[in-house]
Amino acid sequence: MGNIFGHLFRITTFGESHGGGVGVVIDGCPPRIEISETEIQLELDRRRPGQSKITTPRQESDTCEIISGVFEGKTLGTSIAILVRNKDARSQDYDEMALKYRPSHADATYDAKYGIRNWKGGGRSSARETIGRVAAGAIAKKILQQVAGVEIVAYVKRIKDLEAIINPETVTLEEVESNIVRCPDQDAAQKMIDLIDQTRREKDSIGGVVECVMRNVPKGLGEPVFDKLEADLAKGMMSLPATKGFEIGSGFAGTLLTGSEHNDEFYTDEAGNIRTVTNLSGGIQGGISNGENIIIRVAFKPTATIGKEQQTVTQTGEETTLAAKGRHDPCVLPRAVPMVEAMAALVLCDHLLRHHGQCKTV
Amino acid sequence: MGNIFGHLFRITTFGESHGGGVGVVIDGCPPRIEISETEIQLELDRRRPGQSKITTPRQESDTCEIISGVFEGKTLGTSIAILVRNKDARSQDYDEMALKYRPSHADATYDAKYGIRNWKGGGRSSARETIGRVAAGAIAKKILQQVAGVEIVAYVKRIKDLEAIINPETVTLEEVESNIVRCPDQDAAQKMIDLIDQTRREKDSIGGVVECVMRNVPKGLGEPVFDKLEADLAKGMMSLPATKGFEIGSGFAGTLLTGSEHNDEFYTDEAGNIRTVTNLSGGIQGGISNGENIIIRVAFKPTATIGKEQQTVTQTGEETTLAAKGRHDPCVLPRAVPMVEAMAALVLCDHLLRHHGQCKTV
Amino acid sequence: MGNIFGHLFRITTFGESHGGGVGVVIDGCPPRIEISETEIQLELDRRRPGQSKITTPRQESDTCEIISGVFEGKTLGTSIAILVRNKDARSQDYDEMALKYRPSHADATYDAKYGIRNWKGGGRSSARETIGRVAAGAIAKKILQQVAGVEIVAYVKRIKDLEAIINPETVTLEEVESNIVRCPDQDAAQKMIDLIDQTRREKDSIGGVVECVMRNVPKGLGEPVFDKLEADLAKGMMSLPATKGFEIGSGFAGTLLTGSEHNDEFYTDEAGNIRTVTNLSGGIQGGISNGENIIIRVAFKPTATIGKEQQTVTQTGEETTLAAKGRHDPCVLPRAVPMVEAMAALVLCDHLLRHHGQCKTV
Amino acid sequence: MGNIFGHLFRITTFGESHGGGVGVVIDGCPPRIEISETEIQLELDRRRPGQSKITTPRQESDTCEIISGVFEGKTLGTSIAILVRNKDARSQDYDEMALKYRPSHADATYDAKYGIRNWKGGGRSSARETIGRVAAGAIAKKILQQVAGVEIVAYVKRIKDLEAIINPETVTLEEVESNIVRCPDQDAAQKMIDLIDQTRREKDSIGGVVECVMRNVPKGLGEPVFDKLEADLAKGMMSLPATKGFEIGSGFAGTLLTGSEHNDEFYTDEAGNIRTVTNLSGGIQGGISNGENIIIRVAFKPTATIGKEQQTVTQTGEETTLAAKGRHDPCVLPRAVPMVEAMAALVLCDHLLRHHGQCKTV
Repeated sequence: MGNIFGHLFRITTFGESHGGGVGVVIDGCPPRIEISETEIQLELDRRRPGQSKITTPRQESDTCEIISGVFEGKTLGTSIAILVRNKDARSQDYDEMALKYRPSHADATYDAKYGIRNWKGGGRSSARETIGRVAAGAIAKKILQQVAGVEIVAYVKRIKDLEAIINPETVTLEEVESNIVRCPDQDAAQKMIDLIDQTRREKDSIGGVVECVMRNVPKGLGEPVFDKLEADLAKGMMSLPATKGFEIGSGFAGTLLTGSEHNDEFYTDEAGNIRTVTNLSGGIQGGISNGENIIIRVAFKPTATIGKEQQTVTQTGEETTLAAKGRHDPCVLPRAVPMVEAMAALVLCDHLLRHHGQCKTV
Repeated sequence: MGNIFGHLFRITTFGESHGGGVGVVIDGCPPRIEISETEIQLELDRRRPGQSKITTPRQESDTCEIISGVFEGKTLGTSIAILVRNKDARSQDYDEMALKYRPSHADATYDAKYGIRNWKGGGRSSARETIGRVAAGAIAKKILQQVAGVEIVAYVKRIKDLEAIINPETVTLEEVESNIVRCPDQDAAQKMIDLIDQTRREKDSIGGVVECVMRNVPKGLGEPVFDKLEADLAKGMMSLPATKGFEIGSGFAGTLLTGSEHNDEFYTDEAGNIRTVTNLSGGIQGGISNGENIIIRVAFKPTATIGKEQQTVTQTGEETTLAAKGRHDPCVLPRAVPMVEAMAALVLCDHLLRHHGQCKTV
Repeated sequence: MGNIFGHLFRITTFGESHGGGVGVVIDGCPPRIEISETEIQLELDRRRPGQSKITTPRQESDTCEIISGVFEGKTLGTSIAILVRNKDARSQDYDEMALKYRPSHADATYDAKYGIRNWKGGGRSSARETIGRVAAGAIAKKILQQVAGVEIVAYVKRIKDLEAIINPETVTLEEVESNIVRCPDQDAAQKMIDLIDQTRREKDSIGGVVECVMRNVPKGLGEPVFDKLEADLAKGMMSLPATKGFEIGSGFAGTLLTGSEHNDEFYTDEAGNIRTVTNLSGGIQGGISNGENIIIRVAFKPTATIGKEQQTVTQTGEETTLAAKGRHDPCVLPRAVPMVEAMAALVLCDHLLRHHGQCKTV
Repeated sequence: MGNIFGHLFRITTFGESHGGGVGVVIDGCPPRIEISETEIQLELDRRRPGQSKITTPRQESDTCEIISGVFEGKTLGTSIAILVRNKDARSQDYDEMALKYRPSHADATYDAKYGIRNWKGGGRSSARETIGRVAAGAIAKKILQQVAGVEIVAYVKRIKDLEAIINPETVTLEEVESNIVRCPDQDAAQKMIDLIDQTRREKDSIGGVVECVMRNVPKGLGEPVFDKLEADLAKGMMSLPATKGFEIGSGFAGTLLTGSEHNDEFYTDEAGNIRTVTNLSGGIQGGISNGENIIIRVAFKPTATIGKEQQTVTQTGEETTLAAKGRHDPCVLPRAVPMVEAMAALVLCDHLLRHHGQCKTV
């Protein structure tokens, strides 16, 4: 269960990190959207490991194939299947994991739930699972851009205690992609890169915060009660591997203000649009977008796989130790950036279609 | 859209703050659970306003009626409808709101989405909407308690900058209910009460953080990918009115640690159970419960309705000012405690049934 | 489970035949639709028993109350709850049924599934459950009529072996309502009434076929694979109590033709629209409406409750006999007509919104 | 939309008849079920065209590959993706169809709905789409067989007016597979084969009825209201290409009986089980299985693609004629048999898991 996301723009992902491949099926994509494997590949390449000295060196080519739903370069309105073959083979690296539970990984919980697991890698909890999300997200982004000019930009806001200064109103994809840590504050970026590199040498790992801004989101997306736009964004983000927290607008810090400080007062701009003076709400009020920028933050814990030796147990409960072999990923944050963008796009696209279905019909 | 929550234990809520009433229909409740209006009323009374000097004085009796699905004191397995009639009718208080948008309320976004709104109160964004959730949560709690001995306890962890010291391992419902602010740290509680009372006199409002612990949750609940247990908890909590953030386990603070500090090492306890030494994961790994306590925190912003005058606009965009009439609720946190418990119970109960359906069948 | 129907226009029904009441919650209704209790009541009155000598004499007033989602006569876009109180309380008639299983009723299967049942009446299998469907159907009809001029007319096509001759192209609601058996062929209608009356005197029951035509359905409704328009119509109809079969267009008789006889050849009409010469497809091709009239037929078995003595067993398996007390309903067909219309409207309305969401967005 | 089926055992299918391939993703399959590509291939081979002189000669190898969700021969509980590559290439056969609408095909409705279609073949309306269903059905059958000993056997009951005499209580898969028309009445089978062969020579097509019996279905599957077991079976069957009607138990013929003739009286068998003397209900009462054999019938119209010349129009509405090139399939019935079995298995398996989730938890 739980491999389906969305209500009108619905995606189903599949695939373990080891086995035939990973991918996604999109159900409900609007027809006549121009889409190519090249465009999807661009996003997949951003999330791929082995891109720089600060990410995992695991070499994955992650070449995508559109199996169905696209004809002569355009979506058909029917289900779109996208497949990425697995390449790896070094499963001998995983032999030890057939027996030992990796701390803070899902090995033990999979065994508890299913009584079986694919011990060659992380199963469905591998970061490879996000390939399907990013591929579908590429299409969702295209639809949002085409229908409403929506822009979604995510970036590394903080690594451990190194916080960047970034203006969400103006930050661009080019600035984000201008360095390997995907932090558009160049000074902070260099410090982050150094810290990640040092952490890698220490066989340890670190985490941080990704911030994401959604601009030009039409007013009216989101539903009043359970499917509030921020609730679905929270679910999407908290379903990404290694996430521990979610905030919108003022977030946890907003709890330190009084109502008179926190409320976003209204005004009418020159074009006659009703706007808010401040945006502590983060672009959503009562679960529905208000036309201001939607701003969220997602906390990613330090990667669980580390080279340092740790206490653990075997499947049968015997105590032992484990140290991950080979080079590992000291910090998932740079690769998490496209994942966060993808989930934001999937949520917005689904709500765009839902809103049109219910409210533009009459 | 968006008035349905859950997959096997599904609830549909209905009702505006003004109109015939509010309530819930539960689809998928197991049969033969003993349940009475009295038990549900107990939870409803906890979330009811007008209980003390620090909450809104709006008098709501909130008496629930079970319309269907229960026969001779036991659930039938069929859909359970619960109705609470609306009483309060001082809609003249709301006349001004027919025209003016309340800052950081949903008035403007409802108009943008639907082109119509019930201006007599907060519509579906009123805290009254949570009555249905709390009623259904009472039944979910009962099932969880009966099937697995699950205990769910929420409490006020922080009001503005006043943070309480509470042991989630041992805290009890009785301790929570021992004071009107629902904070089991008595020293902090008194300071919180004073601060809320002072804020009320200043016609302002404040927010804070509710923490919730779920104990004795069976291993194996939650699904690997989109329906991770923490993702559904995040969605449930972020769908409550006035929430701005969600954390599990180490949360945002966990991003300041290294992997070797953050990982929860395994050991085998005397009873032969595989356990973790620490619990920075917060009871969930890879989206699936691991048998440790599940601990979450939810940020609630300061209530939007305040007596102080604020800048705003009318429906047609003319700039004006607004100051809420009558006594208002200076702090929603005490009443948010049973809402958080209800959402936690609804998520866990749904996942319990889903897990049994998929994994206990064979 | 199973009390929710639809995907974008979703309804949840509740209520047993005995207990507080029955009703429905509609999630996803478009905003700003004018709707009143009077309009809903009109449809409820058509499905109400006790209307004539040929239906069950059970007196039900079935007065509906809109609890939420409608403000100043218009839908708000939020969830609409409609409640009908139960009145009839002659549960002493049912005392025998606490112990004995009624043949071809759901008593035994409810006990097998849930281990409990509300023996005061038919529980969720009572025809009273359809009140919620008919109420929601009244709103769906209104939307369809307003958005696309869709007309839905159902009528009794056959009672036992008495078949009526009716032109689905032209038949009107007025003709259907012109007699108590709801058969617009007046000659057949009189014979049907006589047969039902005679059957009633024999303490027996009879069944038949309801036909339903949907006119002016826009092209493009329905989805290619599982949610084909005819598949969802089939599900909707086969979810009505006492149904045993479903047909669309040529139906079972169409299997006696060859392809060259059965295919609907295309032509272009004077207005330039692509039309079909014949309509053996019944208005749907490949699961999608083609603009021709949609025509379906639904088989209703003879009512299970009869006054004649029958062999049965008690809950504990002891063999016994049972004869239903009091007057019973000798033929459900006249009352089934508005139920069929309601389900047709619910399916079409849901698909209209889905189609707009996916295909009108770009 | 509409490419997802089921609630707990959910499948998503994808693929056009021409393009990369077709397949299915299963979400919610129980863990630790032994399954191999060989077992799935067995069912796919039954549905494959080109098997005998009476089916379409289109050569499809239809070799399946399990991409994910199975490890060392057992299901993991995670999503199972199965892919079948397309082989064909003779798309020049379809060039004419780029312009002309085939009568009673979905060409025109796809264009009306999406404004685009894959004219190289039947798109999602091709019988090839059922490959994903049959593959998933093979796994559902295995689960049903293993958990409850359920047997599902479908067979050709009628071709045009040639009706077979078959005992659903005893008919076996071996008998069904003993001839190329999949009709276990050998006399009728020979006549059917002759009729199909003659029809093929006449460049025409014929239809008929498939009957399906489900034996050893546990009591209690199905839900009382919308998700009645027969409603979901009806939806599943009516979602298969070329279906025009669905019946359960007595079906349309049951409307000719009186209640006293139609009711299934109860008795207690030697083992103490409550049984019914007759089975006109077809194994389901009140939407819930009663332990008797479930018997359904599905009407398939004559195949739309025929060699005879027909009147039609082009995409732009110009009138023209069309005669399908090459050999075509004169009768889909033999290949429809495994499709019907697959849909029956998918529905039963989903309801088995749902029932366990709701009713076996407490």
